[in-house]
Amino acid sequence: MTQATFRQQYTIPYFLCDRKQTIHLSMLVNYMLKVSGEQTAQIASEQQQTFFHEQNRSWIILAYEFDIKRLPRRDETVTFETYASEYNRLFCYREFKVYDEQENLIVATTATFGIMDLTKRKIVRIPEAVAVPYQATYNKQIRRTNKLEPLQTEQALHKAYLVRYTDIDQNNHVNNSVYLTWMLDALEADFLTRHDVCSGIIKFEKEVSQVEQVSSYVQTTIEDGAIRTDHAIQSSTVTNARASFYWQRSV
Amino acid sequence: MTQATFRQQYTIPYFLCDRKQTIHLSMLVNYMLKVSGEQTAQIASEQQQTFFHEQNRSWIILAYEFDIKRLPRRDETVTFETYASEYNRLFCYREFKVYDEQENLIVATTATFGIMDLTKRKIVRIPEAVAVPYQATYNKQIRRTNKLEPLQTEQALHKAYLVRYTDIDQNNHVNNSVYLTWMLDALEADFLTRHDVCSGIIKFEKEVSQVEQVSSYVQTTIEDGAIRTDHAIQSSTVTNARASFYWQRSV
Repeated sequence: MTQATFRQQYTIPYFLCDRKQTIHLSMLVNYMLKVSGEQTAQIASEQQQTFFHEQNRSWIILAYEFDIKRLPRRDETVTFETYASEYNRLFCYREFKVYDEQENLIVATTATFGIMDLTKRKIVRIPEAVAVPYQATYNKQIRRTNKLEPLQTEQALHKAYLVRYTDIDQNNHVNNSVYLTWMLDALEADFLTRHDVCSGIIKFEKEVSQVEQVSSYVQTTIEDGAIRTDHAIQSSTVTNARASFYWQRSV
Repeated sequence: MTQATFRQQYTIPYFLCDRKQTIHLSMLVNYMLKVSGEQTAQIASEQQQTFFHEQNRSWIILAYEFDIKRLPRRDETVTFETYASEYNRLFCYREFKVYDEQENLIVATTATFGIMDLTKRKIVRIPEAVAVPYQATYNKQIRRTNKLEPLQTEQALHKAYLVRYTDIDQNNHVNNSVYLTWMLDALEADFLTRHDVCSGIIKFEKEVSQVEQVSSYVQTTIEDGAIRTDHAIQSSTVTNARASFYWQRSV
């Protein structure tokens, strides 16, 4: 079965880009979610949308795996493509691809989604009827995602962040994209200026609410010439998200 | 003489909006500057652009005055209109208007620009040749801008912010829009949820660089039923920006 693929074009405004004139990773993620949200608005039946509303449930993102050839640039027009590739009892896997104007693939991302019962705040089973319109393949096997290296917070650098009013989304918790901002900002400006992210994994473990202060921990490892940064977001003693990114020197 | 007016339409993505589904004021300002930047790219001659580059000069924003009937909403398509209305020896005044799809004016903003010598970091005279393509009126009178109420920082609430990597723009200083984020975020989430900004003035006094920590001070005054918040951004003992906003209860 072929998945229902959805495409949209966007031109990246300067104010979502950094000093290197490429889009913030957090904003790339925001565009991806905008495109998948619009696919859902287009193909999910009213009945399916009522299911989420009446049962107080919502799709939530549990993980991203990024493979980045290069990030979209300021004023560049790129095409975002997305489709739900596979699902099982608990998770739905969605692919996001970003193409440049010559149809070269520049970013590929796999996102793991689940459905959360917002009253009980726990993950619930994915009803088949919800998955049908996306034409995703059912595969009962739950994928093993890449393991993240454990991070020794005692030895890691860290910065503290207060949750901002604008960090909170419709679910009354910090928007997923903000964790990426906190994680990357914990690196030194000098490192960020001289390096480009080429791949990464982020896993969301526990939501952050309005009233919290978080610490963004980071540790840098160089092994066989590869530069890896390991990240953790913690509020009090809870780990809210973990990630690893691989980097190369900017050319 | 009629000013050279420039218009562009944009649809506001959800991820630039807050819980009330309206655009962040900082992002509205970013759109405005994008539109004026594109007017400049279109009408300023190569010679004029070389002047800025060779002399290491740049337009900078010194103040905004906002008059807000309502902010653009999530997924709304709005038209941004801009023109340079008047200039004198030191300042250029630029109008920004935002219209909804029925051509109702929803936001009007006046910005005061100056030209900065980036080497000496001081404001320099505006050459007539630079102003000509905008067809702005020369009026030697320097406008008096509305006075801002003095703020007693000892009695004000405040929050501290570290400058983030992504806050810095091409000039290697904190982007003007970030001051608005710091100012509004210093207000309580509960206040922001229940009130809408209806007008405001912000004046930029001293740039903030990468390495600094700033404090965002705010004081709320209710006089004759009008709610006013006075703001100051300070780094060590220097005041970097000041503002006052007027609010009404959200309906």
